[in-house]
Amino acid sequence: MIAVGERINGMFKDVKKAIRNKDKAVLQDLAIRQTKEGAKYLDINTGVAVGPDEQPAVMKWMVQAVQEVCDTPLALDSQKIPVLEAGLSAVKRPPMINSCKCDEVFLNQFMPLAVKHSASLVVLTMTDKGPLQDVDSRVEAIGQICGKALEHGLEFDRIFIDPVIFPVNVDQKQPGYLMEVFQQIKVISDPPPHTIVGLSNVSQGTQERPLINRIMLVMCIAAGLDAAIVDVLDTDLMDAAICAEMLLNKQIYSESFLRAGRM
Amino acid sequence: MIAVGERINGMFKDVKKAIRNKDKAVLQDLAIRQTKEGAKYLDINTGVAVGPDEQPAVMKWMVQAVQEVCDTPLALDSQKIPVLEAGLSAVKRPPMINSCKCDEVFLNQFMPLAVKHSASLVVLTMTDKGPLQDVDSRVEAIGQICGKALEHGLEFDRIFIDPVIFPVNVDQKQPGYLMEVFQQIKVISDPPPHTIVGLSNVSQGTQERPLINRIMLVMCIAAGLDAAIVDVLDTDLMDAAICAEMLLNKQIYSESFLRAGRM
Repeated sequence: MIAVGERINGMFKDVKKAIRNKDKAVLQDLAIRQTKEGAKYLDINTGVAVGPDEQPAVMKWMVQAVQEVCDTPLALDSQKIPVLEAGLSAVKRPPMINSCKCDEVFLNQFMPLAVKHSASLVVLTMTDKGPLQDVDSRVEAIGQICGKALEHGLEFDRIFIDPVIFPVNVDQKQPGYLMEVFQQIKVISDPPPHTIVGLSNVSQGTQERPLINRIMLVMCIAAGLDAAIVDVLDTDLMDAAICAEMLLNKQIYSESFLRAGRM
Repeated sequence: MIAVGERINGMFKDVKKAIRNKDKAVLQDLAIRQTKEGAKYLDINTGVAVGPDEQPAVMKWMVQAVQEVCDTPLALDSQKIPVLEAGLSAVKRPPMINSCKCDEVFLNQFMPLAVKHSASLVVLTMTDKGPLQDVDSRVEAIGQICGKALEHGLEFDRIFIDPVIFPVNVDQKQPGYLMEVFQQIKVISDPPPHTIVGLSNVSQGTQERPLINRIMLVMCIAAGLDAAIVDVLDTDLMDAAICAEMLLNKQIYSESFLRAGRM
């Protein structure tokens, strides 16, 4: 599983404060620790630490700060083109763009941007009317996304479909729907687009968040999930994901498989 | 998931000692604690606490001791007909017989016994030559088991197929094979036979036994596993299994779902 480290996000208090104080050491520490714990991408999100006008400059500053201390590719996390462009102007390695809605207007903006910068693109099964809710409408949308990708020359293996997790206490059928989507997507094309989830939403508002996150992630991996935006500093979560991949024979068993799985 | 509590087994030192000392309080304590932690059956196995000749009488004594303190159905665990018959003569509720090899000679002995005593029967995908090793040979054997069950009038929903877990450090392809078996068995008949695993074998000889057991169990449940012989006193393991079933919408979410899942 491609782990995208979620922590460098202005929605977290420590990062918000660091952005406001221009204290890049906080971001750099998070970058190094997340990389050590197995992050293959580092999510970079300004959050609401600053107003919309300042977000492009802050995104660029965050990208530069992180790249000073580690080579891990970045996932530029914004739905605003100017913010993404500011980040893209500074990245040293092909990044991930996170994320685009699956409306035509958005796809026509984001896909050329991804192509131009050799970036991967996360596309949510979400339109302006909100997230799609059943299996069929999600799979149909994935087909449309693939059609658009062909049109724009974006290779399928640079698309990461995010079928949008709902909190389990809001709709208990959703986790099962997602697993069906992960299975069905494998037959859409060869190679199929990748799949990704923003994991922690599944446990929103529950009292057993780490457990629910962990078990959901393991079941998604068993159903074929490729990537997840997660708290890689959650040791139990990463151990669970790595163990799942080892049991699925995607990673060799050794006595140090938990360490090896973070490399 | 139907949790079969594994602890009342003479292979464990405390139980072995209790059998030799005729100290039924040890067994009764394990029976009560396992039931409280969610066991739907209690495995009863003499182990090698006594010689073969004494095993029938010990099995009967164990059954009686446990039934004095709780109503949880029992899984009589032996491959010897006289030991099973001794246990069956004393059970108060329809038990599980654990377990029968899938050779014709065994099936012709065990299936009539199960029918006579209204018992469920665990059948291993294992012949006198050893456990079957790939998906196809296991599925073929399951077909043969179903044929035999029809012959003997044993209903499919009283059959529990155990596809025999190998230690992951011996053959890393085996966990994936098992998940394929759990999926394929669902289309063999309607209703299909149930599935069960003796979980802990997967982690035999590894250094991360609780983690590997837990993640394997979650992935098996996601693939359709119905029952497992497990250490129900392992809180993390049971939490993982219950959480998996909640996420699969097999159990209602509430703030107390972990407690509810043990009832």
